Amino acid sequence: MWCYKRDVNYYETDRMGVIHHSNYLRILEEARMAWMEENLIPYPEIERMGIIVPFTESRATFLSFLRFGDTFRVDMELYKFTGVRMHFRYLVYNENTGELCHKAETVHYTTTREDYKPVSVKRSHPELFERLKALVHDSRAEEKE
Amino acid sequence: MWCYKRDVNYYETDRMGVIHHSNYLRILEEARMAWMEENLIPYPEIERMGIIVPFTESRATFLSFLRFGDTFRVDMELYKFTGVRMHFRYLVYNENTGELCHKAETVHYTTTREDYKPVSVKRSHPELFERLKALVHDSRAEEKE
Amino acid sequence: MWCYKRDVNYYETDRMGVIHHSNYLRILEEARMAWMEENLIPYPEIERMGIIVPFTESRATFLSFLRFGDTFRVDMELYKFTGVRMHFRYLVYNENTGELCHKAETVHYTTTREDYKPVSVKRSHPELFERLKALVHDSRAEEKE
Amino acid sequence: MWCYKRDVNYYETDRMGVIHHSNYLRILEEARMAWMEENLIPYPEIERMGIIVPFTESRATFLSFLRFGDTFRVDMELYKFTGVRMHFRYLVYNENTGELCHKAETVHYTTTREDYKPVSVKRSHPELFERLKALVHDSRAEEKE
Repeated sequence: MWCYKRDVNYYETDRMGVIHHSNYLRILEEARMAWMEENLIPYPEIERMGIIVPFTESRATFLSFLRFGDTFRVDMELYKFTGVRMHFRYLVYNENTGELCHKAETVHYTTTREDYKPVSVKRSHPELFERLKALVHDSRAEEKE
Repeated sequence: MWCYKRDVNYYETDRMGVIHHSNYLRILEEARMAWMEENLIPYPEIERMGIIVPFTESRATFLSFLRFGDTFRVDMELYKFTGVRMHFRYLVYNENTGELCHKAETVHYTTTREDYKPVSVKRSHPELFERLKALVHDSRAEEKE
Repeated sequence: MWCYKRDVNYYETDRMGVIHHSNYLRILEEARMAWMEENLIPYPEIERMGIIVPFTESRATFLSFLRFGDTFRVDMELYKFTGVRMHFRYLVYNENTGELCHKAETVHYTTTREDYKPVSVKRSHPELFERLKALVHDSRAEEKE
Repeated sequence: MWCYKRDVNYYETDRMGVIHHSNYLRILEEARMAWMEENLIPYPEIERMGIIVPFTESRATFLSFLRFGDTFRVDMELYKFTGVRMHFRYLVYNENTGELCHKAETVHYTTTREDYKPVSVKRSHPELFERLKALVHDSRAEEKE
């Protein structure tokens, strides 16, 4: 799985002394944007093509806490791409202890930038479609085989 | 369902001009804290009892956007309580248009404040347990009947 | 002074157990938007006139902490308006104890929404200019007299 | 000046398409924590000594906007240290254009972690005091000479 790593910021913690649960969605976004930039195309360029990729679904399990002073690693993959919808999966680990802290899945879809109409990338941007198709990797499906 | 209402804040919007998806978890937290204060006991008092209620699971669907200038309403209910776990359900509506914008479920559990050990409220705080039990309301189960 | 009031949100606290210092700028924004809506015109309508009001300067003193469970009150006023620049002053109090927690000043200017060119509201929107002029109130200058 | 660099995150932008002004205080905190870790001692270790370093004053000028897709650089220095108070200065540049976007100063003081009583590091932690003294660098004072 592709990975993204950084330290916990002080301002991301809450009164419990741990990363506030809402901040995981921000961390996953950071990881996803870095993944796009490295593997596909920087997101601002996708926007310039007139396409945006809003958020439509999320599922998450919070397993253990991350604290200020910890470094985390996000392992992630695009595990499904329908031509309109992208399904990502993430595992967030505490790099200091190796512990799994957070598991999540997010679903996104491609729309026009102007009026949020769903875009089938297959037709509108076949090259982007092919590259996304080639990036799909489902480690969980592989494990099951 | 119990409801919580307020205006969208400017700082909650992102480059798309809509509430950033991570902020829904903050809005649901606000609603949940207000629900506790009105129906059960203010959360700071629960903390004073030595109990905290961390986040353990979430599931959400993002249906339409909320913008700066909009007012939203969160309809919510505690639909299941096991003695350790609380399951909440939320529907977020745009008050101006009536449109359903966001559907979510969150699960929380009771632990000791000191060392995050699961607490069975039934044994440790029977009165709190009874009040929580009495608050359980599952509108979706009712609909099905 | 005009005032804005609400409870501290859990997600606004940090590892110290108090409102993270960056959140005061968000709270002041909330207060300012509510002030505009009540006294002048809702901010989204100003945007529709083709004008936005970016942030250009801030100064703040952090005097005591606000915690989850506290209610705060922001006393604020527009104390200077040059036709392009608006100068606001804020005092944030803990409503439970009466203690002054935060003192701040922010400066904003009017620009075109499209290309961020400074706009002299006096010429472009004389009515808005007059209303802003009428709202100027400098309690500190009065005290000195 | 010491420098800290990273990309703008999508979730840091607001409806104007630029970094929300409140996020500069978060960025400066990130830079300060990285500065401490590299030049002094990681902040969690300072906390373990029973000391924390709250925020007491800030002053900032917002000169131009940072957008999603931009990389920024924070040049910073500790320009004054009184034994209790630390005064930092920051210049935030757009790395892509070289433009100066933000100028800020922040003041912090050392207190006990338990009850927020001011601590004179000179007496309580002479070694920390000496290291902080050695780090003081006032580039603006030098320029004037």
